[in-house]
Amino acid sequence: MSAALLPALPVGPVAPELDLAGWLNSDPAPALRALRGRVVLLHAFQMLCPGCVAHGLPQAAAAFEHFGPQGLAVIGLHSVFEHHRAMGPDALAAFVHEYRLRFPIGIDRPGDDGPIPTTMRRYRLQGTPSLVLIDRAGRIRASQFGRVSDLALGGAIGRLLAEPGLPDVGADPAQAAPACSADGCPVPE
Amino acid sequence: MSAALLPALPVGPVAPELDLAGWLNSDPAPALRALRGRVVLLHAFQMLCPGCVAHGLPQAAAAFEHFGPQGLAVIGLHSVFEHHRAMGPDALAAFVHEYRLRFPIGIDRPGDDGPIPTTMRRYRLQGTPSLVLIDRAGRIRASQFGRVSDLALGGAIGRLLAEPGLPDVGADPAQAAPACSADGCPVPE
Amino acid sequence: MSAALLPALPVGPVAPELDLAGWLNSDPAPALRALRGRVVLLHAFQMLCPGCVAHGLPQAAAAFEHFGPQGLAVIGLHSVFEHHRAMGPDALAAFVHEYRLRFPIGIDRPGDDGPIPTTMRRYRLQGTPSLVLIDRAGRIRASQFGRVSDLALGGAIGRLLAEPGLPDVGADPAQAAPACSADGCPVPE
Amino acid sequence: MSAALLPALPVGPVAPELDLAGWLNSDPAPALRALRGRVVLLHAFQMLCPGCVAHGLPQAAAAFEHFGPQGLAVIGLHSVFEHHRAMGPDALAAFVHEYRLRFPIGIDRPGDDGPIPTTMRRYRLQGTPSLVLIDRAGRIRASQFGRVSDLALGGAIGRLLAEPGLPDVGADPAQAAPACSADGCPVPE
Repeated sequence: MSAALLPALPVGPVAPELDLAGWLNSDPAPALRALRGRVVLLHAFQMLCPGCVAHGLPQAAAAFEHFGPQGLAVIGLHSVFEHHRAMGPDALAAFVHEYRLRFPIGIDRPGDDGPIPTTMRRYRLQGTPSLVLIDRAGRIRASQFGRVSDLALGGAIGRLLAEPGLPDVGADPAQAAPACSADGCPVPE
Repeated sequence: MSAALLPALPVGPVAPELDLAGWLNSDPAPALRALRGRVVLLHAFQMLCPGCVAHGLPQAAAAFEHFGPQGLAVIGLHSVFEHHRAMGPDALAAFVHEYRLRFPIGIDRPGDDGPIPTTMRRYRLQGTPSLVLIDRAGRIRASQFGRVSDLALGGAIGRLLAEPGLPDVGADPAQAAPACSADGCPVPE
Repeated sequence: MSAALLPALPVGPVAPELDLAGWLNSDPAPALRALRGRVVLLHAFQMLCPGCVAHGLPQAAAAFEHFGPQGLAVIGLHSVFEHHRAMGPDALAAFVHEYRLRFPIGIDRPGDDGPIPTTMRRYRLQGTPSLVLIDRAGRIRASQFGRVSDLALGGAIGRLLAEPGLPDVGADPAQAAPACSADGCPVPE
Repeated sequence: MSAALLPALPVGPVAPELDLAGWLNSDPAPALRALRGRVVLLHAFQMLCPGCVAHGLPQAAAAFEHFGPQGLAVIGLHSVFEHHRAMGPDALAAFVHEYRLRFPIGIDRPGDDGPIPTTMRRYRLQGTPSLVLIDRAGRIRASQFGRVSDLALGGAIGRLLAEPGLPDVGADPAQAAPACSADGCPVPE
């Protein structure tokens, strides 16, 4: 199941910006445009998805712990596409508190038509848990639904961290150089 | 941590009846009075309690699977004492669906004063997960907060199943002989 | 795989005596005849059998730890039927030392014809790991090849410990009442 | 425990050649000089070391499986420094067969004085399991005693695989370009 992930890491399209209805553990809202120059692990989950709770979220937390000081940004994305009433913002806040998740988490915006939220649709994710790896230039390098081994994920992150890309901006998000002009921060195409 | 549980299994007081605001996977509501003659594993949990999700509930489900055919009754008890808004009946129903829990689950009735629900208070449980073992005569034989090893729990259940108690009523709850008089089924204090 | 084990625990024949070429962690040699009145878990293994090292032996050690004070006797049986040169007494002693096994271990006597050792043949074991449960009266109640869940094993041990059998002889093997006469200790048929 | 490993990967001395008394799963003997241009994971173990069997060797096997097609060479090193009689070549062959290890394994040469074998001494390993990471230029980049997380190891391997070093020689060891002159292949000091 992990085989599809990491050896190749082919260069994909620029990662679409997140469309969020709220966020946790972050101020301001987590935004990809502020993270150019860094490698990003985007982890899409639902708080009542057993595979997310058992594997995906602990893995994202461990990646945040281990690779954060090396410059990896980890962003959780709460992409609810079922049981919407049971997984509202209050419930998510309680969940994040109880599971002691410390990385920034965005709440995917509910879709206008149908149960799939908008960011999830933009990324064409197949379900939860899903992980997306974005390189220093802001491009999608891997997108994987389901369980991925730690060894495979570590290898992919290590490869992407080793790529020169933009000048290294260090491990502190506050020092990240956003690819923004004086007029604002354009959403990448 | 499991040491307190199983060797002794001293005879405690009669198990107080459950006070429920609702129930799942059961019709009628799960009730101890209908289970006299059987050994009962009562598992108190909260759906957003990490230790319950990781250890307690899978263990209760495995006990239901393995010991159910031998006559064990397993009852889940959703005893919410924090984050009440995040763990209402709708959320619990979604949780039970996603985690495929098949044993009867009662929703502990909210307390009149304070956050502790009534059944949890009756049993003086220290938190979640907690497990309570009730013998064929309806008496508490073990009450344990926290993680218990499978070996220890299996041993305690095996011992209690081996006790003669009332005439064996078999594995079918529908055939259970309630310890009720012609006047009704009194709730023990 | 564990399904075959524990619910029934039908009464089988008297457990044949162990035929040993040596022993560890015990003085005198571990002998079933000295354990009448107690429940016995016999665990057959090979030191180079991956399933034994990963699951069987840790389970036997945990059973020794948890149920020993309740009166269970645990005996390891090193039944080598392949790679005989690699698993001689010296190698076993190093293995037992490194893995810190504390329960008595008998070395199954090599067979006269063929690779199967004699005790393993007497018990008609299908391979390693295998576990055999013997009741207080010395009778085989379960014999299982392969992996057994802790819950299932705990349940079976708990049931057997609850059987009255002979008068309880306590947890200390030194105080065990052997079923021997003044003339000696007969090997049960 | 894994913290020491991977973020930095400072450039260390050239990895000393292996000094072997025998080998398995390889023809000819595994030799570092034949692997210049590739990243090498050297895993030192003892067959009766519980931490090696439970964690180190499965991790090495998983790294071989996952990163082998990406160009990683995995070499096991059987560095016996205790219980020498129990871990001779015959025993190791049986062990490798039973545990289905498929990567090349060298048998570290017994030391002239004292129990530490020669390659282990050259690398100043603190015990088993130990892992050593060698980059494409043949230099030691990490040396770690004890347990390392899969995420950390994967990250370090990914980083090293991403380094250009010598021209990539592909995943086939037979095509590896040894850093040898016409006069032969000198053992680095």
